[in-house]
Amino acid sequence: MIDVYATEPKGASVNEQDRRVFDALFAPQVIALVGASSDETKHTSRPQRSLRLHGYTGKIVPINPKRDEIFGDRAYPSLLDVPDTIDHAFIMVPAAAVPQTIEQCIERRVPVATIYADGFAEAGPEGRRMQEELVARAREGGVRILGPNCSGVLSTKPSSALSVNAAIEQLEIKPGPLAVISQSGSMTGGLLSRGLGRGVGFSKVVSIGNESDITVGEITDWLVDDPETGTILLFLETIRDAPRLASAARRAVEAGKPVIAYKLGRSDVGRRLAASHTGAMAGSAEVADAFFTAHGILRIDNLETMFELPTLLANKGPSKQHRVAVMSTTGGGAATVVDRLGTMDVEVVSPSEAVVAALAGKGIDIPRGPLTDLTHAGTRADVYGAVLDELVASDHCDLVLAIAGSSAQFQPEISVGPLLRAGNQGKPLAAFFAPHASEALRQLGESNVAGFRTPESCADAVRAWSQWKLPMPVPAVDRPSLAAVADSIAALNGRRPNELESAAVFGALGIRTAPAVVVSGEADAESVSAMDIEYPVVAKVLSADIPHKTDAGGVVLRIKSPEELLQAIQDIRGNIARRHPDASVDGVLVQRMEAGLAEVILGFRRDPEVGPVVVLGVGGVLAEVYKDIAIRVAPVGIDEARSMIEQVKGLAVVRGYRGLPLGDTEALAQAVVSLSQLADDSVQQIAEAEINPLLVLPIGAGVVAVDGLVICSQGT
Amino acid sequence: MIDVYATEPKGASVNEQDRRVFDALFAPQVIALVGASSDETKHTSRPQRSLRLHGYTGKIVPINPKRDEIFGDRAYPSLLDVPDTIDHAFIMVPAAAVPQTIEQCIERRVPVATIYADGFAEAGPEGRRMQEELVARAREGGVRILGPNCSGVLSTKPSSALSVNAAIEQLEIKPGPLAVISQSGSMTGGLLSRGLGRGVGFSKVVSIGNESDITVGEITDWLVDDPETGTILLFLETIRDAPRLASAARRAVEAGKPVIAYKLGRSDVGRRLAASHTGAMAGSAEVADAFFTAHGILRIDNLETMFELPTLLANKGPSKQHRVAVMSTTGGGAATVVDRLGTMDVEVVSPSEAVVAALAGKGIDIPRGPLTDLTHAGTRADVYGAVLDELVASDHCDLVLAIAGSSAQFQPEISVGPLLRAGNQGKPLAAFFAPHASEALRQLGESNVAGFRTPESCADAVRAWSQWKLPMPVPAVDRPSLAAVADSIAALNGRRPNELESAAVFGALGIRTAPAVVVSGEADAESVSAMDIEYPVVAKVLSADIPHKTDAGGVVLRIKSPEELLQAIQDIRGNIARRHPDASVDGVLVQRMEAGLAEVILGFRRDPEVGPVVVLGVGGVLAEVYKDIAIRVAPVGIDEARSMIEQVKGLAVVRGYRGLPLGDTEALAQAVVSLSQLADDSVQQIAEAEINPLLVLPIGAGVVAVDGLVICSQGT
Repeated sequence: MIDVYATEPKGASVNEQDRRVFDALFAPQVIALVGASSDETKHTSRPQRSLRLHGYTGKIVPINPKRDEIFGDRAYPSLLDVPDTIDHAFIMVPAAAVPQTIEQCIERRVPVATIYADGFAEAGPEGRRMQEELVARAREGGVRILGPNCSGVLSTKPSSALSVNAAIEQLEIKPGPLAVISQSGSMTGGLLSRGLGRGVGFSKVVSIGNESDITVGEITDWLVDDPETGTILLFLETIRDAPRLASAARRAVEAGKPVIAYKLGRSDVGRRLAASHTGAMAGSAEVADAFFTAHGILRIDNLETMFELPTLLANKGPSKQHRVAVMSTTGGGAATVVDRLGTMDVEVVSPSEAVVAALAGKGIDIPRGPLTDLTHAGTRADVYGAVLDELVASDHCDLVLAIAGSSAQFQPEISVGPLLRAGNQGKPLAAFFAPHASEALRQLGESNVAGFRTPESCADAVRAWSQWKLPMPVPAVDRPSLAAVADSIAALNGRRPNELESAAVFGALGIRTAPAVVVSGEADAESVSAMDIEYPVVAKVLSADIPHKTDAGGVVLRIKSPEELLQAIQDIRGNIARRHPDASVDGVLVQRMEAGLAEVILGFRRDPEVGPVVVLGVGGVLAEVYKDIAIRVAPVGIDEARSMIEQVKGLAVVRGYRGLPLGDTEALAQAVVSLSQLADDSVQQIAEAEINPLLVLPIGAGVVAVDGLVICSQGT
Repeated sequence: MIDVYATEPKGASVNEQDRRVFDALFAPQVIALVGASSDETKHTSRPQRSLRLHGYTGKIVPINPKRDEIFGDRAYPSLLDVPDTIDHAFIMVPAAAVPQTIEQCIERRVPVATIYADGFAEAGPEGRRMQEELVARAREGGVRILGPNCSGVLSTKPSSALSVNAAIEQLEIKPGPLAVISQSGSMTGGLLSRGLGRGVGFSKVVSIGNESDITVGEITDWLVDDPETGTILLFLETIRDAPRLASAARRAVEAGKPVIAYKLGRSDVGRRLAASHTGAMAGSAEVADAFFTAHGILRIDNLETMFELPTLLANKGPSKQHRVAVMSTTGGGAATVVDRLGTMDVEVVSPSEAVVAALAGKGIDIPRGPLTDLTHAGTRADVYGAVLDELVASDHCDLVLAIAGSSAQFQPEISVGPLLRAGNQGKPLAAFFAPHASEALRQLGESNVAGFRTPESCADAVRAWSQWKLPMPVPAVDRPSLAAVADSIAALNGRRPNELESAAVFGALGIRTAPAVVVSGEADAESVSAMDIEYPVVAKVLSADIPHKTDAGGVVLRIKSPEELLQAIQDIRGNIARRHPDASVDGVLVQRMEAGLAEVILGFRRDPEVGPVVVLGVGGVLAEVYKDIAIRVAPVGIDEARSMIEQVKGLAVVRGYRGLPLGDTEALAQAVVSLSQLADDSVQQIAEAEINPLLVLPIGAGVVAVDGLVICSQGT
């Protein structure tokens, strides 16, 4: 067991009532097929065939008002007429007829209904409304819903192939440790087919549909406790229930069951497709990656990796270090993988002196350098085996990548034999063969050794492994600061915070803000002269109604004297009166001018997909052009904040790049930690907060917030 | 025929003498196997077996001093004893014995010798020297050399499987249109095996070895005229003969034969491997990409694409536009490809109104938007076929990407049938199936329709197609400017140019430089006051010995008066005397201070792999951190220069980003064109030139070079 919790997880695991639902979903004794067709050419006839074909031993009850019997099973006009207790209703009637069927499910106390019909949330606002009403009624009536827009659900042990999918009917389905949850119904067959084609077996395949009730997170949570499931594969277009998925993923790491996600939406066009396909918003790939990493989910880029990576990880947790040793009989073949690993910042290590010496003792000279290339001369079973065994046994590396050339196809005893023997020593072992060596790959697969068909999926898998970490520790909650923030917000009485009130929030979090005083727009020479402020200063209009102060003529920089300040106040007053006559102005903010080594943007927001996130970037036009930012799920601890600073390339300017003076990155990390505390539910009315710029001062001198804004959600 | 030349190509095509060499290489009547073994377990016994097994009909002459006969062929002690005329000697003796064998080849007038031995240039300086001597002697004696470090060469028509490679012996080799040239000998078998495993056939497979004499470029050139070859595939670790490869690739485009390159070295570790493996320097991936693009070579990223892309391009030239239409029966399956295309900036277009209307006329309603998703309801042969035919026939798109789900595996009549019919209409057609549909892919392959096994190789292929352009036009040579440059360089009499002399070169090319005068370090108040220069100015030490002037205390900025200038000159003089007492100082350069909207770095150099290149980047620390540059093979024309400006992200600041003032990008493009002229052979003593910074002024005001340096190669 791996301890992944710094604090208690938010999500609860599956309770007894849920267990009844999931048993009904995956191991139903009685299935009602509502809208079952007796016409074999219709796909509504398929679940009945598919169930029987794959050995379902329970009772099938077709519901069809026009038939007494369909394919040998007694049919009934409605669920209400069925004498048996129904475990699972698969509803294949059109959308309009679904509510009535759900009423019948409620009446018959069916624990779970799977809805095939589309035309709900994915079809637009009207469909979304229908879906919400349906779910509300089902919840009220005690019926859980899978779907709508769900093509079905498959179990192998016990067998229940309840699906309209043609592939599921046609394929010979091998039981095995992979569970798939797919947001694309039409891909469930494709994924199953690809996996089976590679020789792997499945425990469950779930088309999750619109997730109106049962979500990816909830199924994942249940699968963590499913003895038939070893690895959970997610084909995602969006994330709809982040907290539940997060807690399920954390439980999965603890249970030694990798969760691997393939998520669409890495490009704009991909996000648009996902949105039109699921009716859900898809956020940026960076935000999803942050979520996956935070909760111990592996993210893959290549579809094939889905079926090749699980073997590499089977029964393993995240590794503490990620040093990869590479051996090969073909330099060119090895380079196809290693070159790619290099572009992904995976660390490839040279053999240790101990390994070199041990092999020399056996008469085997290996080259120093990151690739242990045995060349044609070393293409012998004794040499390959000895080198492989040394690398697997050595503690200088955490994963061994073993590559072979044509011999893998025609002389499998040379490399495949040693790989089969070395594959179960505990250390992750990845094999790639340069030729088309399907028989060799099959043999590896049968012995649970990870073989990869393409250099790309091999590199993708090793990269995913190298980025797989224990779930991010949940940092301590800074109660006093959050209470002070809550007080600041409460004091607004629902008003939008202006810059000074925003600064109070940052200050409450412990982030230093530039000293400032507020003067009224009617300030006179005397009052300005009497101000206790160090020049030069900046004057800025203070108004929650004017977000773009500079454009509005509301900012004057580099003010060196009380006389200049008075003039500036008058200018600002005139500009605002002219350009924003209706704005409510709270005065003019006079702030000491600050200078730092770098200007950063530090932001917090509640992402519609994954929830609270903290974002760090460099200020200025160029940084914006380069989209040079680091994102994490909030809140973060200090180590995570430091890793964000490392990730932002432009912050090289405060990390000692080219002899530039060092900035106070430690204070910056602390500011990131502090701002990320806004994720706490106690201040959930804060929707967004951005400090722009936050100046990074020389090492030891801290950071200082010069401008920023807090945005509260409506209705608070 | 496609006209790809703006001017005559530099490389010549294959002449009669070469033809004799290549006939001997690919269709030898008599092959001598020097060092042939009679021991079947040795790989030096393999070529003889392999030749016979694959149907070689010519004469095989083993050379082995210890045998009269090997495997039924009469053996001789030396080449000198063979009674026949020998076309091709395959030399399998150790490196030390190779020179003597080459002497025998010369004596016997063998046109070409292929050398298997390693231990030459790839092994270090001593090996390189041996190799150079060997080639010099062979050239003198009229023998061409393939290798050393070459595993062999394979032809299918007529059959000649002359190789030590185990895979080549074991595989059933299908003739076909693909020719492979590989710099990795151990990968030739792997590539052949992978291609055959995918059902494609081969014309030639060449292990090119160290390219001591016959290069990738020369073989490519020959293959352009080979009627058996349709597509030329290159597996590269480096580029050794850029001019010949460039001219061959241009001829290939003209002949309608795509050249597709998979090149290692995209990462540092990959480049180090390539260097250690080939003994050749591997440059940056960006430089290689610039070379490929300039000469009409397609560059691929995925190994599988090598065997999937040729069908997509067969008998086609580069397309003028690259609009991709996408249709599918599975939204999720399509998204696996389209999302990836989005990250690669490939343009996916929505169906035109005409297509929508034409299909509506047939009762088929398709969605507007970039993905024509027929959904489950449209998974019918008539619908799939009608939509596919409309897209293929429509001029709103240049490539059709057709995707299908489970039906491709179990109801091939729905999608595979229409694809087979639509595949030969001239428009590129790419098919991807979500499931494991090997039979469907086989059928497509047999009918020359491009099918892809993974979404990644499919996207890689479409991306490669979309970036495939006609070879870059060779711009006109600016003779007068180059003559002026040559005069400037000649005037140096071998001295290194200082900043002012460098500026003269830039000026000769027509690039405006900031006005400047030189004063001696001993200038007095009177002479300074008398200077005809507009203040403010900059003073800089003028010395070819001090490249880092600022660090040396040799630069004073923002000088506003003659008094300040005099002081600055004295300061510089003192600093240099103290810090660089031995430097030869040519005076102090006084230059008007210029300000621009952006500072760019414009450079020229002769790359060891691809030759002259021009590089454009943004100045400043951040741009350096982000490696935001555009590289092209030099010289470039104005269109190419404009595309470089578009490519540099940081130049957004002069392209109107966020309302910033527009810079004179047209003048910048002209400066790029001008500097790139240094590629001309008439000024080949210029090894490098860099203007840093070149200021971009507001639109209409041009650009101005403020600092820069020209570096000449040694010995000029």
